[in-house]
Amino acid sequence: MENIKVPEEFKVLISNRDKRYVRQCSIDCVVFGFAQNQMKVLLVQWKYLDKWTLPGGFIHQDEPIDQAANRILKERTGLEKLYLKQFATFGDPHRSRSKDMQQMLDAMGIFLPEDNWLFERFISIGYLALVNFDRVTPNTDLLSSVCGWHNLSEIPDLMFDHTHIIQTALGTLRKQLYTEPVGKYLLPEKFTMPELQKLYETILGEPLDRRNFAKKISSMSSVKRLKERKSGGAHRAPYLYTFI
Amino acid sequence: MENIKVPEEFKVLISNRDKRYVRQCSIDCVVFGFAQNQMKVLLVQWKYLDKWTLPGGFIHQDEPIDQAANRILKERTGLEKLYLKQFATFGDPHRSRSKDMQQMLDAMGIFLPEDNWLFERFISIGYLALVNFDRVTPNTDLLSSVCGWHNLSEIPDLMFDHTHIIQTALGTLRKQLYTEPVGKYLLPEKFTMPELQKLYETILGEPLDRRNFAKKISSMSSVKRLKERKSGGAHRAPYLYTFI
Repeated sequence: MENIKVPEEFKVLISNRDKRYVRQCSIDCVVFGFAQNQMKVLLVQWKYLDKWTLPGGFIHQDEPIDQAANRILKERTGLEKLYLKQFATFGDPHRSRSKDMQQMLDAMGIFLPEDNWLFERFISIGYLALVNFDRVTPNTDLLSSVCGWHNLSEIPDLMFDHTHIIQTALGTLRKQLYTEPVGKYLLPEKFTMPELQKLYETILGEPLDRRNFAKKISSMSSVKRLKERKSGGAHRAPYLYTFI
Repeated sequence: MENIKVPEEFKVLISNRDKRYVRQCSIDCVVFGFAQNQMKVLLVQWKYLDKWTLPGGFIHQDEPIDQAANRILKERTGLEKLYLKQFATFGDPHRSRSKDMQQMLDAMGIFLPEDNWLFERFISIGYLALVNFDRVTPNTDLLSSVCGWHNLSEIPDLMFDHTHIIQTALGTLRKQLYTEPVGKYLLPEKFTMPELQKLYETILGEPLDRRNFAKKISSMSSVKRLKERKSGGAHRAPYLYTFI
């Protein structure tokens, strides 16, 4: 068996009771991207465990929760300056009482007493992030060995209630398609109407009528048609659009 | 000065550290009603204090948060079986660190040490409730002396960040006017299109074009025109509508 070296920072985290972090409250981030006509979600794999989780963490006692979400996402994925919004808070009493945490600690050779704060019930505030896939280089932190994109249609086994959190985030995104500038964050700066429709169809998981779609989009004040057409030379090349 | 009798239940609440309730987490409910062409919000006044608050409370360690919101609303207002949904979580580190709590305790002659759990930072989960004004008889609980409706346009001084919470709830309601059956909970079972329009105009705080409004409403699958017309005898009495 590999000789495991427990990071000093992690030792502080698990011993630091009641002081640095808000008790019984955590943050989980659902980061969506779009590439190869697939919706992608960013997951991290914890060291010493064969399971995946959403990028998440705790809230410093003097830290606003939105700021904590930004910090956590930066620490765990390298991303910053994102579309990042609260979408729901998850408060089932059994959601975080899983054996996954204990398994990881066992693998690291760490023993914590039952009343350690990490074993308490956690209520988790969910944040939804939208990022341009091409501009993102995920990195890892002290707890995770891998951070990477997964197709939303092929999500691996997740810890805790993270599958449910992702489904709720997707439901929120679907409801906001005609009120929030979703494509602004998921597509390149300039795009054609068929490209935008493909994004919407992928998010919704169903085909859309071309004319109805164009009509709904043109009623959104945030989408603007440019004078340019998509390059490539065809005589009837489609117009380009952008979000303003 | 009045001889204050501190309720036994309250003594338990303030002494019961770390056990019954989730630490650093609370629930606040924004209850909207509609009457006399005014949006109303339900507020409670704490005993021994001249300030108002939203109906709120704590979460039992073994209780799902939605269930806690329902229980709190029933305990503090007598309401149950409502439209009650989470809308946002409030996490400014200074939001609950006010002197209001200390003032109330002083007035009751209670001294609590600085490290009492009630003085910790609280992150509050906001729930939005919509109720039919005519069916509601607010009542009080052990901490509140008055529970009653206030016009949204004339809200008194509130404790903590509760004015901000109400404004956020109103913003959420405005965004959902054409996607959620808002009128189902705020109006009587049957209503005319002008009555529904008046409700929407009151929530939005601005007049709406009659034709555009009727067109938008008729595209909502939840609104149905009945064969009945509004009684009163006029030859051209308006049709009645209902939510299905």
